[in-house]
Amino acid sequence: MTAEVQQQVEKLGVRSGFVVVSVPHTTAAITIGENWDPDVGSDLERALAEWTPAVRFDHGEGNSPAHFLSEAIGHARLLAVEKGSLRLGRWQGVFLLDLDGPRTRTVAVDLLGAPESGA
Amino acid sequence: MTAEVQQQVEKLGVRSGFVVVSVPHTTAAITIGENWDPDVGSDLERALAEWTPAVRFDHGEGNSPAHFLSEAIGHARLLAVEKGSLRLGRWQGVFLLDLDGPRTRTVAVDLLGAPESGA
Amino acid sequence: MTAEVQQQVEKLGVRSGFVVVSVPHTTAAITIGENWDPDVGSDLERALAEWTPAVRFDHGEGNSPAHFLSEAIGHARLLAVEKGSLRLGRWQGVFLLDLDGPRTRTVAVDLLGAPESGA
Repeated sequence: MTAEVQQQVEKLGVRSGFVVVSVPHTTAAITIGENWDPDVGSDLERALAEWTPAVRFDHGEGNSPAHFLSEAIGHARLLAVEKGSLRLGRWQGVFLLDLDGPRTRTVAVDLLGAPESGA
Repeated sequence: MTAEVQQQVEKLGVRSGFVVVSVPHTTAAITIGENWDPDVGSDLERALAEWTPAVRFDHGEGNSPAHFLSEAIGHARLLAVEKGSLRLGRWQGVFLLDLDGPRTRTVAVDLLGAPESGA
Repeated sequence: MTAEVQQQVEKLGVRSGFVVVSVPHTTAAITIGENWDPDVGSDLERALAEWTPAVRFDHGEGNSPAHFLSEAIGHARLLAVEKGSLRLGRWQGVFLLDLDGPRTRTVAVDLLGAPESGA
């Protein structure tokens, strides 16, 4: 989803600084990874499934592995913007990991700037 | 510990922006996860214990799994603030993972704002 | 690499605020961890090797475990600066994890400040 994040950066009108890409979900995560070889995506899915610890989960919805992976990997990543473009390494791309999907997911792209203080 | 973080946000007087929730410890971590079902907490503890690789650790204090998990999960998370409140998804809460506890832990909540430069 | 990051903080002339330490690589990661006992570094290497899921990777370069670990741990960490110095806990240090090395790696240390908006 690198292209969608880049579009948001342009919409926000930021030339340089940092944006935070995040999800409001507890069964999804955001990460930065290899973007060139499409095999890397399916490799990642298989690896994540295997990676989840095989323990008893008392939470009854059956989505506990997704909660676990979301907490481990993180709901957000920080990305630098330079000259109006995401500054990514040659092979880096932004990924939304839908760990209990496919579902419709919301992703926020926020500018990290000067905070507004209370009156 | 979502409520404590929200209190700090109010004390800092921030209306909108980002805060960083972090620990100065090498055997603890901060994450965002499912906050509704209390079973998720004990599920997470069991899963983390199982998740730690069963390798030889030369570090002699017996807390190497805690160091490992702290490095893997992270000492900090970034959270958006909107209208004076943490902007969390419906099920999201902030968790302090005490990986070598229970101990008394320090958690910092810092405003991400315009930096102060040296004179 | 805590000392190198501190040098960059001094070069940037920041007195207080936050810096982002990041890599543009998909086979490396940045983390914060135990810095005192040198055994912790080699312990971490062994643990990461064991931690990688033993699944089939279709990506043909043989560096898939490195991609996986970079995505899981993260390409960046946020660090507070106070009075011109990195604010780290007593045992905390900054680590570059070269997951497919050793190679020459680039690490960026960026100030998180007021963004520049487009004209």
